[in-house]
Amino acid sequence: MSIQLNILANYDIKKLLEVVRREVMADVILRNTNIKRILNGHPWIYKTEIDRIEGDYTPGGIVNVLNHKKEFIGKGYINLKSMITVRLLTRDIHEEIDEEFFRKRIKRAWEYRKKVMDNLNSCRVVFAEADFLPALIVDKFGDYLVLQTLSLGIDRYKETIVKLLVEILNPKGIYERNDVNVRELEGLPQQKGYLYGKFDTMQQFEENGIKFWVDIENGQKTGYFLDQKENRRAIQNYVKDAEVLDCFSHTGSFTVHALHYGAKRVETVDISEEAIEMAKKNVELNGYQERCNFVCDNAFDLLRKYDKENRKFDTVILDPPAFTKSKETVKDALRGYKEINLRALKILREGGFLITCSCSQHIKPDMFLDVIKEAANDAKRNVRLVEQRTQSKDHPILLASEETQYLKCLILQVL
Amino acid sequence: MSIQLNILANYDIKKLLEVVRREVMADVILRNTNIKRILNGHPWIYKTEIDRIEGDYTPGGIVNVLNHKKEFIGKGYINLKSMITVRLLTRDIHEEIDEEFFRKRIKRAWEYRKKVMDNLNSCRVVFAEADFLPALIVDKFGDYLVLQTLSLGIDRYKETIVKLLVEILNPKGIYERNDVNVRELEGLPQQKGYLYGKFDTMQQFEENGIKFWVDIENGQKTGYFLDQKENRRAIQNYVKDAEVLDCFSHTGSFTVHALHYGAKRVETVDISEEAIEMAKKNVELNGYQERCNFVCDNAFDLLRKYDKENRKFDTVILDPPAFTKSKETVKDALRGYKEINLRALKILREGGFLITCSCSQHIKPDMFLDVIKEAANDAKRNVRLVEQRTQSKDHPILLASEETQYLKCLILQVL
Repeated sequence: MSIQLNILANYDIKKLLEVVRREVMADVILRNTNIKRILNGHPWIYKTEIDRIEGDYTPGGIVNVLNHKKEFIGKGYINLKSMITVRLLTRDIHEEIDEEFFRKRIKRAWEYRKKVMDNLNSCRVVFAEADFLPALIVDKFGDYLVLQTLSLGIDRYKETIVKLLVEILNPKGIYERNDVNVRELEGLPQQKGYLYGKFDTMQQFEENGIKFWVDIENGQKTGYFLDQKENRRAIQNYVKDAEVLDCFSHTGSFTVHALHYGAKRVETVDISEEAIEMAKKNVELNGYQERCNFVCDNAFDLLRKYDKENRKFDTVILDPPAFTKSKETVKDALRGYKEINLRALKILREGGFLITCSCSQHIKPDMFLDVIKEAANDAKRNVRLVEQRTQSKDHPILLASEETQYLKCLILQVL
Repeated sequence: MSIQLNILANYDIKKLLEVVRREVMADVILRNTNIKRILNGHPWIYKTEIDRIEGDYTPGGIVNVLNHKKEFIGKGYINLKSMITVRLLTRDIHEEIDEEFFRKRIKRAWEYRKKVMDNLNSCRVVFAEADFLPALIVDKFGDYLVLQTLSLGIDRYKETIVKLLVEILNPKGIYERNDVNVRELEGLPQQKGYLYGKFDTMQQFEENGIKFWVDIENGQKTGYFLDQKENRRAIQNYVKDAEVLDCFSHTGSFTVHALHYGAKRVETVDISEEAIEMAKKNVELNGYQERCNFVCDNAFDLLRKYDKENRKFDTVILDPPAFTKSKETVKDALRGYKEINLRALKILREGGFLITCSCSQHIKPDMFLDVIKEAANDAKRNVRLVEQRTQSKDHPILLASEETQYLKCLILQVL
């Protein structure tokens, strides 16, 4: 009985594979190596894992991925120009990669945000691999969406995706921010511009009930870093009535939150004049300019200077850009993190709080915590860990793909 | 100039040590080994780290701790019956261990809760080592405090501590829950009873705006587990309109939260009849009995049964008791965690949420996450990590003492 069932099952799968093959052109057959990572749900097939490709395919087109025994693993899009040669879109042999596929995926992503986020005025709508839409990013700022298609395979569906975003989210406009280096690894041009509607690319939106400007056309990445949304709200209790130093302030998102939550004073530091200008605009938008001063300076130097001058703060916020983008420079990055955290711990008053972040994907949560411990030891300060945080829930983490976790935010008290 | 200053400094310290010695009876001199852990802020001196003790001391009394060069490290209380022979109270040679010392420490602990907690009706007021009051636990339930003095050294100050708690927190009553095994390692008797006031030991309090009963006299530990307070609030978005299975419900704290946050139905499972009785009382106190059913059963068996029967839930909560209390049984504990999480993942509907906890101190956060990954692989479910949580902020974590972190709470979505 069970043998008969097995035969039947095998037969069905073979027949289905035939159907699938006619449509998808090619089979990518993996080498006979350990592919546990892939079977456990990681969506990437590296070039080194591929034995051969049978059949024709177009770059960016859909292919079957089969194990060395030619058993079906999943379907995805292929690009031989990239080390990540196939990104899987589905493990379901029955699932067609068509408009309906993208409709279902985008709907599911949006339903998830509606379920887990307290407010949807601004959020990440699609977080690529973690939403089973590899290399697709969609951020929402009020009525406007910003889109990134970071691989050739997903870029081919851009028009469909735009159509579906309009259908599902009904935005006033959609803008493309594909002016990023990573596209070149895929053989794609860097470009930006309107995909739907024409609108002022300087827009207002809300985060945690606070107003912000986003420069959709020229701001970093999609214009604003939404991944810190919940961490910014979490600072509430640690900035009230406090003298706050906000280092690497960028466009002032932590600064405005600190002012909104009742900080006595905030000193806002960034090395970029444009960032400081934007931070000023955001502070003024909320009417908090009287409690804030802006310093256009290198935060490393300034922290060292304040340490020497024995200047003290109640709360220090460190939200630097990624200090490393590769495994090779992790050591240097750790030195950088240690330096700024050591100085910050030293200039905090007893009982004060350090809010310290790292968005380097290659710095794992444990490594970051160890750096803070070392800094605390060197600063000879007794430190308590009050909160251990990560990216906001609209940037979910795929258990099978640790690349999807990258943000660390620790809140510490110095005693 | 700097040499002169050094001589002066040395002189002062020597003079001070003389003064200190007269008061504190004995010097505990450490062996010439690596004491980095202690210098970095860990408050425990193990028996094996001690070279010799010079001078007289009473068990539980205050001693100086010196390094092998007889340089001052800190002051703490001693108990040769315990492997943790000295627990440091201060690193400040000037700080006397007297009533004023405890007043300052308890005040500081209370100020911290006032700063970081959103509501103080119920909270942990003193969390032992993490509040620099080793082995002292104080929990607050409405107007009542429950106290544990878990070592000989702190037990000697019980009267002073009670007096100060009355002075600082003005409770209606204080109860002692020293009926715990760990006291016997310190040569202390197990005991419980009133320390201040006479009152009904079955009391109501509030957590996240929800009413609960606490059995101060007979409930586990101090009567109720406050460490999950923020995690219970965090379940809000994952239980609304959901069919929820709450395993290891204990007195129903997660159950009542789920009902309060709009669960369609909750099935509440615990192996203990007393726990189920208390859970019923708590559900009834909030008027939610119509949406809840109670099952007195072994959660392991029930999960396996529901898996076989193909019963499905939208949300499963797992908050088991510690599966291991020592390093030796970590492997068995991990097997236990994997088993229940595997079953839970299997009985979740697509898009459903698993809220899974571990309070075993020997199961590190990474180990727990790995178990969940393995369970997800074995269950062949795609799983997203939505939140990574730990104990509430009123149970802060001392960076220098990893023993102070013990609670893990992961919120995952199954796809």
